Amino acid sequence: MSVIYDRVALIGLGLIASSMFWAMKRAGLAGEVTGFARSEETRDVAREIGLCDRVCDSAAEAVEGADLVVLCVPVGAMGAVAEEIAPALKPGATVSDVGSVKKAVIEAVGPHLPQGVHFVPAHPMAGTEHSGPRSGFAELFENKYTLIVPVEGSDRAAVDRLEALWQAMGAKTDEMDADHHDLVCAVTSHTPHLIAYTMVGVADDLRRVTDSEVIKYSAAGFRDFTRIAASDPTMWRDVFLTNKDATLEVLGRFTEELFALQRAIRTGDGDLLHDYFTRTRSIRRGIIEAGQDTDAPDFGRVKKG
Amino acid sequence: MSVIYDRVALIGLGLIASSMFWAMKRAGLAGEVTGFARSEETRDVAREIGLCDRVCDSAAEAVEGADLVVLCVPVGAMGAVAEEIAPALKPGATVSDVGSVKKAVIEAVGPHLPQGVHFVPAHPMAGTEHSGPRSGFAELFENKYTLIVPVEGSDRAAVDRLEALWQAMGAKTDEMDADHHDLVCAVTSHTPHLIAYTMVGVADDLRRVTDSEVIKYSAAGFRDFTRIAASDPTMWRDVFLTNKDATLEVLGRFTEELFALQRAIRTGDGDLLHDYFTRTRSIRRGIIEAGQDTDAPDFGRVKKG
Repeated sequence: MSVIYDRVALIGLGLIASSMFWAMKRAGLAGEVTGFARSEETRDVAREIGLCDRVCDSAAEAVEGADLVVLCVPVGAMGAVAEEIAPALKPGATVSDVGSVKKAVIEAVGPHLPQGVHFVPAHPMAGTEHSGPRSGFAELFENKYTLIVPVEGSDRAAVDRLEALWQAMGAKTDEMDADHHDLVCAVTSHTPHLIAYTMVGVADDLRRVTDSEVIKYSAAGFRDFTRIAASDPTMWRDVFLTNKDATLEVLGRFTEELFALQRAIRTGDGDLLHDYFTRTRSIRRGIIEAGQDTDAPDFGRVKKG
Repeated sequence: MSVIYDRVALIGLGLIASSMFWAMKRAGLAGEVTGFARSEETRDVAREIGLCDRVCDSAAEAVEGADLVVLCVPVGAMGAVAEEIAPALKPGATVSDVGSVKKAVIEAVGPHLPQGVHFVPAHPMAGTEHSGPRSGFAELFENKYTLIVPVEGSDRAAVDRLEALWQAMGAKTDEMDADHHDLVCAVTSHTPHLIAYTMVGVADDLRRVTDSEVIKYSAAGFRDFTRIAASDPTMWRDVFLTNKDATLEVLGRFTEELFALQRAIRTGDGDLLHDYFTRTRSIRRGIIEAGQDTDAPDFGRVKKG
């Protein structure tokens, strides 16, 4: 493939940024990629493992001359970073981000960007429970969706170019507005994470069942919750604080439904439970058909030696 | 390995029974394995794929002369099956089961068993979201726990022999009493399943987010829920109806915690959220260390072509 941006700057060097770097390098999508992380330790690790062509000691230095600047910091830090880099941005550059919440990021970042800089928010819907500069890998985005959320006045050419980059990194892309994005993510990601965190917290807290029992017997359903609940605490704190309305709305629906099922258990209404469980099964089939997971009987896991 | 039981009868031919058959065959743990399923279609499939050495047309026929009879039917059907096979059981035989709930099964099955037959309930804590006679595979139990739940007066030699069978099928084993078993499973399996079912149901129900969006963007956390929520509806209905008390207790704790986190979101208490999410992370580490999951950055999934 050919170069899409001559110069790319990654601000924040965690799971998403490091995966972007390896994905861009693999396909030759960027000329030079600079990087910056607030923590010196992260910058040292990045230099040690060859993450970024050049690791800079300030965000402003990293964005200098960049055609694309991608903010890969927790949602709550986006505004401050935007303010910091704004004076150093090259005219005509595109600024994007990878935050899991879009309305709050647009409100925090947009006002800082100078005229002549294109703002194209984006959100790669992919991740693992790992974080930090060592956690990235080039395949992270493959076959996963990256949502592009153009703002009012986003330049069409700038949007198309960013979308081309994501596709070249292996992602599928869709465009939607920020409000809808935040609701969709509250359903498919934010509320599930909160619920998983809660369930793992309850298990940890129940005095009559030991942690060692919880850990030993996790294969029976709990294991998937712990994977979700091991995600980066700072990132997720910011997600819930900034996507408050949509998360609370979906949570409200969730507890309503949960109480209905709880009541069915208490009253012994087996038909209601059976019907409900039958309905949810079909959604899984849709996901298999859409290629978002495998239905191999061992979940496609590599066998451990 | 050598034969542990000369004759084994599997009653019910779903995921667990079919996996047991393949695991026993692979290691040569049983002489002849007979099988019975209530549905003629299931029996036909079993004959077609060579599941069981002999598929019988009645449960009584299948258990005749068997040294070990394993009830692999939904928990709610255990009592009726026990009543049906009781007259045909060989003196000295062991009757076991694989139900996810133990107190209710013991109460339903125990009274039907004649003197001189050993009852040793068990519960392999392994599964996939698939069900039916074609879903089994020999590796299902490997490195997963099977809980052995001896009843009052269980014969020690019979318990040890059953435990040896499970270990030879690749499982680790622990013994505990029925009450504790049911609470442990309410935490590690039953409540997580109910929550996953609920979340998937809510997603399906929210009018402003389409099913197709939910499916496309599921990689962001929701996918693991759909896998859990695709499990067999009949089996899970029975689990909740028969492990009512422990499930309702854990659900009560869960909603209490969820409301605390919901309140933190509403009031913007980022410290509470961050502390909570940090605590849950350590449980995940324990599970990796216990070998119950892999921490490969791509979750150990085989790449799709």
